[in-house]
Amino acid sequence: MDLVTLDDIRAAAALLDGIAVRTPLLRFDDHLRLKPENLQPIGAFKIRGAYNAIARLSDDARERGVVAYSSGNHAQAVAHAARVFGVPAVIVLPDSAPAVKIDATRALGAEVVLVPVEERESRAHALVEERGATLVPPYDHPNVIAGQGTVGLEIVADAPDLAIVLTPVSGGGLLSGVATAVKALRPDVKVVGVEPELAADTAASLRAGRLVRWPTADRSRTIADGLRAEPSELTFAHLRAHVDEVVTVTEAEIEAAVALIARRARIVAEPSGAVAVAAHLRSPTPGSVAVVSGGNIDPALFTRLTEVR
Amino acid sequence: MDLVTLDDIRAAAALLDGIAVRTPLLRFDDHLRLKPENLQPIGAFKIRGAYNAIARLSDDARERGVVAYSSGNHAQAVAHAARVFGVPAVIVLPDSAPAVKIDATRALGAEVVLVPVEERESRAHALVEERGATLVPPYDHPNVIAGQGTVGLEIVADAPDLAIVLTPVSGGGLLSGVATAVKALRPDVKVVGVEPELAADTAASLRAGRLVRWPTADRSRTIADGLRAEPSELTFAHLRAHVDEVVTVTEAEIEAAVALIARRARIVAEPSGAVAVAAHLRSPTPGSVAVVSGGNIDPALFTRLTEVR
Repeated sequence: MDLVTLDDIRAAAALLDGIAVRTPLLRFDDHLRLKPENLQPIGAFKIRGAYNAIARLSDDARERGVVAYSSGNHAQAVAHAARVFGVPAVIVLPDSAPAVKIDATRALGAEVVLVPVEERESRAHALVEERGATLVPPYDHPNVIAGQGTVGLEIVADAPDLAIVLTPVSGGGLLSGVATAVKALRPDVKVVGVEPELAADTAASLRAGRLVRWPTADRSRTIADGLRAEPSELTFAHLRAHVDEVVTVTEAEIEAAVALIARRARIVAEPSGAVAVAAHLRSPTPGSVAVVSGGNIDPALFTRLTEVR
Repeated sequence: MDLVTLDDIRAAAALLDGIAVRTPLLRFDDHLRLKPENLQPIGAFKIRGAYNAIARLSDDARERGVVAYSSGNHAQAVAHAARVFGVPAVIVLPDSAPAVKIDATRALGAEVVLVPVEERESRAHALVEERGATLVPPYDHPNVIAGQGTVGLEIVADAPDLAIVLTPVSGGGLLSGVATAVKALRPDVKVVGVEPELAADTAASLRAGRLVRWPTADRSRTIADGLRAEPSELTFAHLRAHVDEVVTVTEAEIEAAVALIARRARIVAEPSGAVAVAAHLRSPTPGSVAVVSGGNIDPALFTRLTEVR
């Protein structure tokens, strides 16, 4: 299996220059700085992979448009990136999706197709067939992985004293890209994935040396709703090649990290975006950078997690 | 009176390169982007002026140290900047200051001197005499104004479509520096100061063409506790030369802006840092950039302002 290379990630960085926000590193404590990807448009790193995937389409493919069927940050990222490039986008959402999410996706200029939840994937593929459109998957594609890898390039450029990078892992696109970039440039730096104890399928897979599947119901227990996906063969191959370790954090640790990130770094993180900071708090190491992957949190939940008790 | 020049601000930018965070512009709505200075170390733009003032000291003066007597973000900024440059810092705080603020200042490596609130200024000047130390004022100094002006340089560099810059005004250091930089580079861009209706002494002064003093008790009514100072002769001269207008916002508008900034841009702003966004919300103009000047807000107040009602 061909893995994404440093050159692929550098090419993505050139395409994303002036399009993705060049996020700075922010001080969290004496040992940790944050890479605040919650500051991207639509509030998550996902915009990088979506931009790169769409930027690499031929003129012809751009005219026929793109399709995505995630209901989370990825769908918003595809809709946003498609608008930037003037490409038509269809987002397939479950008909049970909250009106606010449907409206937000439409506000980004995308066509929304509502289907029963179990038909999302098949309808997306049917749209690809009908329209000759291109499916932009949330993580299982080299161009998406290369786009997310630009996070790693920027961390290396901004942190000469880097010793360890902590990154959330779900489908593994972000961790694959970051690990590829960091290990190519700084093989001495430790790359660690972080996931909730309640969705620790990636840690189990790396221990087993093969993809271990957890039932969706199990993976759905965590408050970190962006970390309920599982790696693909492609991302798992990257993780095996480049990642030193995957550690897990508890729900209480995730919740506490959201509050601390707001107070110390003055940014809003969603639970999925806070897991890498939670891992640091358990075991602080000098020269650490944690990726805060997103900031799309329900306001009522944010109040509950940050209020003074 | 000599005003700060674009060259002074460019020289400050060279000194601050790699020291102050290079904050990106963040999308707030179709017309407004934010300059998130709450992301600086200690959570406010004040670090820029403090860095520049200390960076420009002679080796000899550095050895004798610096003194500051603000009890707000400026004191923390001086303590932090002094530590970066290895310069001893004395911060004079009122003995009524909360323990948490005293501890935070000490944690930044500064010596804290506690005095009755009315003796702060005289004690600071006495320390300057005794030790040969240098007083770093919060705004009434060309090097401080030049440091804050780097915010304006960065906005111009990052926003080719810029039409209007909105900046909080209190003592006027930030607005003086930003207006100097913006008008020198882009005379077509409108520069607007924003202050609370309850502390609208700068608007009154510009209307009168001379410094109009409001009683401290009046200026202290606003929730925007960082905007209770008043311009000096030096900053007022800059404002008269370069600022198009100063507008005011209500307390309710300030409170609403804090909540919207957290939701839309995923950052934590203090009330003083939110006034420029509040002004935009009243009268949105395409091509706007608002400076979010700081993010040091009491957690309980932040919960009250951001909770869903």
